[in-house]
This record gives sequence, structure tokens and C-alpha cells, in this order.
Amino acid sequence: MATLNETHDPKLTSWVVSANHGTTDFPIQNLPFAVFRRQGSAEAWRGGVAIGDQIVDMAAAVQAGVFSGDALAPAQAAAEPTLNHLMGMGAQAASSLRKALSKALQTGSAQEAALKACLVPQADAEFTLPARIGDYTDFYTSVYHATNIGKQFRPDNPLLPNYKWVPIGYHGRSSSIGVSGQAFKRPKGQVKPPDADAPVLKPSARMDIELEMGVFVGQANELGDPVTIDQAESHIFGLVLFNDWSARDIQPWEYQPLGPFLAKNFASTISPWIVTMEALAPFRAAFSHPEGDPQPLPYLSSDANSAEGGLDIQLEACIVTPQMRDAQAAPERFTLTNYRHAYWTAAQMVTHHTVNGCNLQPGDLLGTGTLSGPTLDSACALIELTVGGKNPLKLKNGETRTWLEDGDTIILRGWCDKPGAARIGFGECVGMVLPAA
Amino acid sequence: MATLNETHDPKLTSWVVSANHGTTDFPIQNLPFAVFRRQGSAEAWRGGVAIGDQIVDMAAAVQAGVFSGDALAPAQAAAEPTLNHLMGMGAQAASSLRKALSKALQTGSAQEAALKACLVPQADAEFTLPARIGDYTDFYTSVYHATNIGKQFRPDNPLLPNYKWVPIGYHGRSSSIGVSGQAFKRPKGQVKPPDADAPVLKPSARMDIELEMGVFVGQANELGDPVTIDQAESHIFGLVLFNDWSARDIQPWEYQPLGPFLAKNFASTISPWIVTMEALAPFRAAFSHPEGDPQPLPYLSSDANSAEGGLDIQLEACIVTPQMRDAQAAPERFTLTNYRHAYWTAAQMVTHHTVNGCNLQPGDLLGTGTLSGPTLDSACALIELTVGGKNPLKLKNGETRTWLEDGDTIILRGWCDKPGAARIGFGECVGMVLPAA
Repeated sequence: MATLNETHDPKLTSWVVSANHGTTDFPIQNLPFAVFRRQGSAEAWRGGVAIGDQIVDMAAAVQAGVFSGDALAPAQAAAEPTLNHLMGMGAQAASSLRKALSKALQTGSAQEAALKACLVPQADAEFTLPARIGDYTDFYTSVYHATNIGKQFRPDNPLLPNYKWVPIGYHGRSSSIGVSGQAFKRPKGQVKPPDADAPVLKPSARMDIELEMGVFVGQANELGDPVTIDQAESHIFGLVLFNDWSARDIQPWEYQPLGPFLAKNFASTISPWIVTMEALAPFRAAFSHPEGDPQPLPYLSSDANSAEGGLDIQLEACIVTPQMRDAQAAPERFTLTNYRHAYWTAAQMVTHHTVNGCNLQPGDLLGTGTLSGPTLDSACALIELTVGGKNPLKLKNGETRTWLEDGDTIILRGWCDKPGAARIGFGECVGMVLPAA
Repeated sequence: MATLNETHDPKLTSWVVSANHGTTDFPIQNLPFAVFRRQGSAEAWRGGVAIGDQIVDMAAAVQAGVFSGDALAPAQAAAEPTLNHLMGMGAQAASSLRKALSKALQTGSAQEAALKACLVPQADAEFTLPARIGDYTDFYTSVYHATNIGKQFRPDNPLLPNYKWVPIGYHGRSSSIGVSGQAFKRPKGQVKPPDADAPVLKPSARMDIELEMGVFVGQANELGDPVTIDQAESHIFGLVLFNDWSARDIQPWEYQPLGPFLAKNFASTISPWIVTMEALAPFRAAFSHPEGDPQPLPYLSSDANSAEGGLDIQLEACIVTPQMRDAQAAPERFTLTNYRHAYWTAAQMVTHHTVNGCNLQPGDLLGTGTLSGPTLDSACALIELTVGGKNPLKLKNGETRTWLEDGDTIILRGWCDKPGAARIGFGECVGMVLPAA
């Protein structure tokens, strides 16, 4: 599964000096992909790779002849206006490109001069979706989230009997997925107060977030050909932060019997930078179900998945209210969790999704589901943090939040940090709720 | 909403004589769109229009200079390898093209010679998906289906309280949608027998069909901009037949709390020909909820929707078993229903889907849900027809079917026929179950 190579060496430094500060999300050991152009320009969208506070403009770098050999074809694909082609080339191609980028960006590289001309400051860039997302599937991999929210939707029956056997997932809406910076109108929908005879159409009064990770599919599988658990990671390109905005008053009235629909599909936001599975190799974690829980069925089990199916990724959500924005206050963190708490791994998501022959395609997105941890302060949705709206969050400036208000901005962040490895990060996933139309 | 014009005149005939037999699905009053090429060729896929037993090759027809004026741009779009562009141009553009096609194909048309050279026999053609389907949503618009199936999944609670208020829908899988002729391996999945302690992974033993219609979205709406009920039909390009294959033993174990997933996403099949909303204008039907049922909320109500929101489309499903195939027996019909039995109209599906601001895009597909009628012989899934597997279908050759067996072929057909209008049809939607891998 995860193999360390020279690109992960924590001692590596780059001639892009901002990449060498220990606090950057984008040291030379990371090298995530996005699609960008200069802010406000009419330039073509093209792929880029983050290094420190800069972006390697892949179109310019290919033009400048920086890449050759095995790295050339993936470099050309990484220069396109969507990364679907790169994703579909598979893990080996992406790895060749990573090696070439790592060499070219290293301190002392002979390509410094050529590549320096291809840098664009991140501060000057705007981003778009890194891929045409054909299908988006959301999973439900935190047993803590499933239990917390189950208590509120089904007090007598919080965790359904299938949860510990089936990596529960459902299809979501691709068209309304946007990239960090997305601002969306508060949705309207049918809401039925418990004591009312009939529902009413109104703007949601229970706007919530869900802190998730998004898994971008790489290499495709053919319709009818399941992906085994040991092959699953070779079908994953990389990970982003993902905010699955939710309207908690629309959800309970509509979701039975076929699942959430309008409570979720008005907007979902991803971070622009896709951190590859290879970059995450130093942060693999052992994976197991708690003692006493059923072991996964054989198709969902493998030694590699047990040894290192988990991912040690710290995740946080912060809020900026309009009042905080006016006061230029720093974003305030209201939850901190870790992806390793998930009950099902990314590989298990892929394998389960395809066990019936369903075909995954390059650029498809799999959400992990809300990644709430075992304690309340690591819960990843307001519905959990406020216990269904009963205990509002208290912010440092004296404001409270039960649900999101108009003008509230949510910032998701994620990072990996452990002794013996270079810290890498995901950047930010920022979204804002606008007033209803 | 629906306006009759000269293209609907039942007296119109075509110089393509096979279009003038009263039994053809494709008289000059229909003019549906597909994407095709000559069978087994390496030709480019391009759009075509059905006329009798022929196809107007739109790429050839554009090349031949058959179209001009308002019809030229939509004709060029109709010649592309997917029809998304044509769909996105809106109803007015499609209508201009329809008028031009109707004139050019009429008996006595000056364009007969030019267009004759652009015909390809349908018998020589193969078809592909007519559009890149970005998102696919399945609705649940038959109250009879919801009640029948609800009785089996939730005996105490068959029709949930939201059903008569909310046009229930959920997201489905786009990648596994195929065109008529699709053959797919029987899916494997987790199945839990009621008396077992644990689920097992096995090939589905309860393969079923769902006879639906598919609604192709035309003109897009922007994210955040709902489509009103009176505008909804201007966002619909046309209709196809749709078979939402279902694995009934996978479904009950996986579907709670987030809805059906692997029980549905291994394959779904559409008919190749998209019949436009304009072609269906003579077959509109009054629409209302039964007396005593709640009236739809105002956003789902309009005079036009009440006057003619329904569609009088006859629908049937037929089976060909391997034994029947060997005996060269005719396909055997096992259900006959009508789209006008739906509890929610196509316009209500569009308006509800977008009321929260969700954006629909050209080529998106909306399934109506299984279109079971009020009586058991008009039920549109085996799970209903066999009452959950208890009463097998008896076929004329003495075979029985509780669920589909390997090698079974299902053929869906649909047509509109009433006095004073030319009969039009949808062609066929054919799919076959192959053995599990």
C-alpha cells in the first residue's frame, strides 16, 4: 500500500524558500494538485502544484521543457483545465510526476531557473474545481457521527444494525459542488414543525456544516468489475477537505424512505488542493474495529488495510461571523478531529462501492461522511455540537451560534504532523452562507 | 405549456413511407433524437432523428445544407456526439429544428432528394447514450408503487406521512446508465437473511426491474435560482423509457438510513430515442390529487399544471426468457400501465428539485420512479407483481418467474395513441441479466 521513497525525506528542502518554513501546508514533501488561473484574469484554467506560497504553473512548466521521460505524459495531463486525465492515468504515472517535481524543486536543482519563471504566487490565484466530478457519493464512516445524529433522528434506534457491517453510502449531487470560496444562498425547502398539520416552504433555519474529507477517484474500473480491497488504493488519486452543508430542518421531513436530498444538494464545498495518496504515505495508521464489534466481511478485509488503512489527518473547523469579520478577529475553531477515527477506510469505501460491479471514473468524488471523533468536542456538525440545537456554541466575542447565520463563513483545515516526517497540509476549504433569495 | 402547431397535424405524411404506417413509433409527428453510428463501424457517433424505420443522420444533413435560419444552430448541435449542447439551447431552439425537420420530411418537400442521401436504416445502426448525464436523480412519483413496496419494507407504515406533500426523490448513479441493449452481470452484495446473525456476500437472488420514464433536462438553471412551476417544462428536453434494475435482497439490508445504493447502481438502462416535450403536446392530461388528499403547496401548483401537467403515455414491460428465445417466442407482456397515474408531474419534479437552489444541467436525467398503476396488473416491478416473491408470474410456455434469471431479457415499450392525433412511440428499452462474475 504505502511506500516511502526519496520524495518523503523530511530533510529535503526547496529553492522556493517559503516551502521550507515548518508551518507551511505545502513543503516539497506535499506537492498537491489544483486547477487555477490568475485572479480576475481571462487566462485559461490549468493545473498547478503548490510549493510553499507559490504555484508551479504546469502549463508553463511543460512549455518550458522541465519534464521528460515517464513524467512527461502526466505533466501534460496535469497542465489541462481539469485533472481527470491525470487521475485516470493511475498511481504510477502520478508517482513519476511527483518524483520529477520533487527533483526540479529541490535546493540545488539544475531546473531552478527554468521553473522559477513558471511560479505564480498563491495569493494572486483563483481556483476552480480540479476535476469534472461525474458522480459524487457520500459515505457515513464515523460511527460517532452516526450514533450522535441517529439519537436525534431516531431516538429509539440510533445506530442501525447494518452500520457495523456495511460501509453505508448514498449518492449525492455533483452539479452543486464548488471550490473553496463558494458562497451560496440559504436554501428554501419544505419544513414540517412537529406540531403542525402541514409543511411550509421557508428558508432553512437550521443551516449546518459537515466536516468531511473528499476522496478523488483516480484510475477507473470497468462496469461489472469490482475492485478488490488490495487494489482499492490504486484507484484513489488523492484527498481534499469537504464541507457537506446541510439544512437540518429540511432533512427530517424529506429523508424517508430514500435518503437526504434537498437538505444537502444546494451546495458542497471542497478545498482546491488535492493531496495525493503518495504524499500521505508517512501518515498511515493501523486500522481495526473496536474489540467486540464484528470483523469486516472478507471482501472488506486485508492485512494491508489492517496494518495501515487508516490516515492520521488532523481536521478542524473554524467560524468567522460577520461581527468577527468587522472586528478583524481571527477565525475561531469550534471542533478538532482526526480522520483515523473513521470506522471504514478509504480503501473499504472503494471496494464496497464497486463490489456490485458499479464503475468508478477518474474525477468521481467520495465523501467520507462527517468525521466526528469519539468526544463531543470532536463532533463535526453543529447538530451534534449543540445537541440538536439545545446547547448553542459560545464564541469568544460573546456571540452564540446554534445554527449558521447569514454571512457566517466556515473554514475547514487539515494537516498531518508527526515526528520523523515533514508536516504537510491541505490548505483551506472556505464557504459562506448568503441570505435566502 | 403545451401548444399544438402544424408539426402535430395528424394528416401530415412523409416521403419516408415507413413513417406513414399507423403502427410505427416514429411518424413525422414524433421526430425524436438519439446518438448513433452504423453498427460495428468505427464511425463517429452523431445525432440522428427517427423517421419511420430510418434515421436522419444529422451530421450528414447539416453537411448537405438542409438547415438554415433559426434551425441551423440547433441542427448543428443535434449533429454532435452528445446532445447536451442541443438540450441546453432550450425549448425554442428545439422547436425551430422540429419545424424544419417536419417540413423537410413532409411528402412533397423540395428537400427530399438532399435528405434521402442522409438516411441510415435503424436496423443498421447502433446507439449510445444521447447525452453526457452529469447527475441522475430518481423520483418516486407513483403512490401505488410507494404503497405496494412500502407494505413489504415497512408493513406497519407503508406510505410515509411526507409522501403526499413532498415529491420524494434521491440521487442515483450516472456512470452505470447504459443505452438499450445493455447486458450486465448480476450484482453481488451484502445480503442478510432475517434469521441469520451476520450478512453474507453473494450474487443477488432477487433481481428486479422498475419500469420508469426518464426526463432529460434541457435548459440549465443557475445554482441558487429555483425554477418556478410555470417555467419548469421549459427546462425539460424530452422523455425516454427507463429501467431502474434493482436487487431486492441487497436493498433492505443497506437502505437505512440513507437510501438505496448498491441495490440500484450496478446498471440502469434507457431507450435510445428522446421524445421531445413538444412531440408529446397532443397527449397532455389533466392532473390532480385524489379528493381528500392534500393540495400541493403553492410552489408546486399552477393552473397549467392542473390543466395538462399529466401525460397520457401507455407503458408496458415484456420478458424474453432463454427458453423463449430458443423457441423464438414473442416477448411476453407482464405489465401495462400509464404515466398519467403518477402522483407528481414532470414539472413538479423539476420545481421541487430546484426549490432549494439546486442547479440542473442540460443532459441531467430525472427518473419518474416506478410507474405502477392502481391495479396489481399495472404494477411495474416484480416485487409488486409477485407480492414480494410469493406469487410467481406464470408465463405462457409454462415457465414461472419470481425474480429475473440469468439470460432473461426485459423489453420496455411506450406509446401515445388517441383519436385525433398521430400515434407516436418511444421505441424499445432492452436489457439483459448476465450471470454473476
